[in-house]
Amino acid sequence: MRMRVRELLAGGTAHQCCSVSGWVRSLRTLKDVAFIVLNDGSNLSGIQIVAGRELGNFPEVCRITTGTAIRVEGELLESPATGQQWEFSAKTISLIGYADDSFPLQKKRHSYEYLRSIAHLRPRTNTFGAVFRLRSKLAQAIHRFFAEKNFLYVHTPIITAGDCEGAGELFRVTTLDASAPPLIKGQPDFSQDFFGQRTGLTVSGQLEGEMFALAFSDIYTFGPTFRAENSNTARHASEFWMVEPEMAFADLADDADLAEEFITYLCRYALEGCPEEMAFFDRHIENGLLERDGRGAEAAFARMDYSEAIDRLLRSNARFSYPVEWGLDLQTEHERHLCEQIVGGPVFILNYPKEIKAFYMRQNEDGRTVAAMDLLVPKVGEIIGGSQREERLDLLETRMTEMGISQEPLSWYLDSRRWGSCPHAGFGLGFERLVMYLSGMDNIRDVIPFPRTPRHCEF
Amino acid sequence: MRMRVRELLAGGTAHQCCSVSGWVRSLRTLKDVAFIVLNDGSNLSGIQIVAGRELGNFPEVCRITTGTAIRVEGELLESPATGQQWEFSAKTISLIGYADDSFPLQKKRHSYEYLRSIAHLRPRTNTFGAVFRLRSKLAQAIHRFFAEKNFLYVHTPIITAGDCEGAGELFRVTTLDASAPPLIKGQPDFSQDFFGQRTGLTVSGQLEGEMFALAFSDIYTFGPTFRAENSNTARHASEFWMVEPEMAFADLADDADLAEEFITYLCRYALEGCPEEMAFFDRHIENGLLERDGRGAEAAFARMDYSEAIDRLLRSNARFSYPVEWGLDLQTEHERHLCEQIVGGPVFILNYPKEIKAFYMRQNEDGRTVAAMDLLVPKVGEIIGGSQREERLDLLETRMTEMGISQEPLSWYLDSRRWGSCPHAGFGLGFERLVMYLSGMDNIRDVIPFPRTPRHCEF
Repeated sequence: MRMRVRELLAGGTAHQCCSVSGWVRSLRTLKDVAFIVLNDGSNLSGIQIVAGRELGNFPEVCRITTGTAIRVEGELLESPATGQQWEFSAKTISLIGYADDSFPLQKKRHSYEYLRSIAHLRPRTNTFGAVFRLRSKLAQAIHRFFAEKNFLYVHTPIITAGDCEGAGELFRVTTLDASAPPLIKGQPDFSQDFFGQRTGLTVSGQLEGEMFALAFSDIYTFGPTFRAENSNTARHASEFWMVEPEMAFADLADDADLAEEFITYLCRYALEGCPEEMAFFDRHIENGLLERDGRGAEAAFARMDYSEAIDRLLRSNARFSYPVEWGLDLQTEHERHLCEQIVGGPVFILNYPKEIKAFYMRQNEDGRTVAAMDLLVPKVGEIIGGSQREERLDLLETRMTEMGISQEPLSWYLDSRRWGSCPHAGFGLGFERLVMYLSGMDNIRDVIPFPRTPRHCEF
Repeated sequence: MRMRVRELLAGGTAHQCCSVSGWVRSLRTLKDVAFIVLNDGSNLSGIQIVAGRELGNFPEVCRITTGTAIRVEGELLESPATGQQWEFSAKTISLIGYADDSFPLQKKRHSYEYLRSIAHLRPRTNTFGAVFRLRSKLAQAIHRFFAEKNFLYVHTPIITAGDCEGAGELFRVTTLDASAPPLIKGQPDFSQDFFGQRTGLTVSGQLEGEMFALAFSDIYTFGPTFRAENSNTARHASEFWMVEPEMAFADLADDADLAEEFITYLCRYALEGCPEEMAFFDRHIENGLLERDGRGAEAAFARMDYSEAIDRLLRSNARFSYPVEWGLDLQTEHERHLCEQIVGGPVFILNYPKEIKAFYMRQNEDGRTVAAMDLLVPKVGEIIGGSQREERLDLLETRMTEMGISQEPLSWYLDSRRWGSCPHAGFGLGFERLVMYLSGMDNIRDVIPFPRTPRHCEF
């Protein structure tokens, strides 16, 4: 029976008659013995296979090349060598799939840029193996966190009617003829399109999520979202996954409490659930990572009003590219200064100017701020953005009119304020930002299996 | 502190000083007492609130209308009434958000058709509350199942290069000018599109999932997939969620073993984790549902070769719209006859004719079948489709040539057979089909929060 290396090692006793299968990472041969590092993707370091001359195909085994798929029957033994507790003593080794020396992942360092061009093979490297194991564990942990808290998981739609705000950043979804779309007076006739109207890819599941929160009290979404922004930075991708919880009968303080519990849970989960990977990141990707993530795992993040944050930034002697004044949409430089220099750890900034925030955020009594919050973390800056939502129909409609947002396409959203409305709040977490924060990886392209960015849609 | 009704009832002891918040489902008043059924979406039946004349706002409470959001402070007491174990004795009732009598969900039965037109409100009904709680529990159970088995969760891309097979069913994703796309010799110039090429929405994450299985051994995807098919049936949606596990070093029998374990796990999970909802479905949606799902929860599904299935269908006296002969792509009528009449439970059909299956399926030695499998279940027919994949590069390339599939756009896929190839297998489960199977709901539009079908993209 095939066992995965991770499970074999977790067992921690000598096994009889078991087999492991995986890919050869390296081979070292002496006169009478060959040492193979076998990796099956279930852990980082793989397992050392010891093959002796008594194997029928020992000469063949000694010529095995990096990347070859093999199956080994044998038993787990305590290793006499230093640096590892266990080794696997081979009784038979079957060669399943060769990799000749044209296999691109030979034993040498490759640049991340090059590895992106072979995104279908890079999961077989140590770094990307660790990144995608961490990503998977975190995604599963997110579901576990909300399941334990009895939040309902809702799949909000990916294809949405495209005539809401921000259509400039929407990808259009269509089945119209690409070369000769039907026109009426020079304008595209979307009534002939698949959905009978202009449609695009969602930028957020929040509005639909709110509808479910107003039926199930506590819900979350976790799905892909899209931005057709032509920005080529290390932090932006055209397709990324977002987590968006929403709570009925909750205000901004409840929202920050949830975000804090959520982030500390995920930090702890990474440190405890992926110790081998986290140690690897600390050693090879970012020195001090374990300490930084450890601080993220402690509760009691600071909380500061936006106005105070502006004051503190003005009083600091730091120089910024964007000058600081009340009303400023905080840039990453300000966000990082706030959490890294002023607070020394994660910090919530609360109650932003309404002019720089979305129409659905709840208006504060001061008339100039809304009940918005961002969670800023060292190195990354904003990792979570949320708000209490405006539950008062008249104030919401007035704000939409002020901002020039048409009410008719959102009449269903307004309905939720018409019947049984209640205070509610939620936030969004860019999942890739979280993976970057916890792993220390600098480029969003390196934490997404097959990244989509402007002019890049390979695989 | 706010408690959810479900947690309050699960506690099962009299509580002091707790509050519940939710929406009023019904109100019944006597001279000195009002009975309110309050639902917060955490369970099906809600909780009965008992409010007496001692409440300061008792007259107001007696005028509360269906759909109103309220907050109640009080305590849980054993109920003297029959039909319920507990009731909640109100000390204060605060009205949070009114619903006047224009609220569409008054106490009467509505057709599913009508409720689809208010998909933003229908989660507040008993039926859709139950459906979406079940859907959420199942989605979380899927992650739990694979997490327990140490499968890696991979987010395969949603936007994919659109020049592979089956492009006719692809939604196009674009940012080109909708009225005047750039043309070269009358053909659209996709080099000017956002990704520099023609792109569409994914129909399956399998091919990318295979790349990850060949690095991590055991993986799964769980994400949205799309079909731009103009079919208006109760079983087809344009956007739906799919689960696709993939295992390296595995063959077709391993694949069926996993599918069987998976389906029985989910059936048990539904029956044990959602007893109130499942009883409701059995009573109101499909008589006999509990018994049918109970059979799905038992292991040891039958397995039958396609050729035998054809023989058995031919020997049966049933009449079919599509005549039965070897080579037939089984229709739902055949699938249901096989599992409902011939086997009397779930059955795997194995080894289909290669002509009706995809290029990537492993060719059997008989030269005319491939190592494909479908799992058929009563009422629904096919619920899972899978196969062992062709891991032999030469045979895969030959088959692609035979089928007229261009190799160049799939060179990355072929790479996986070039270096370290190995036997591997996987399957796909349409998540909505599973929810329909377990709940007895007949129309896929009624198990998706905001369904997308031809000409329908509301909300």
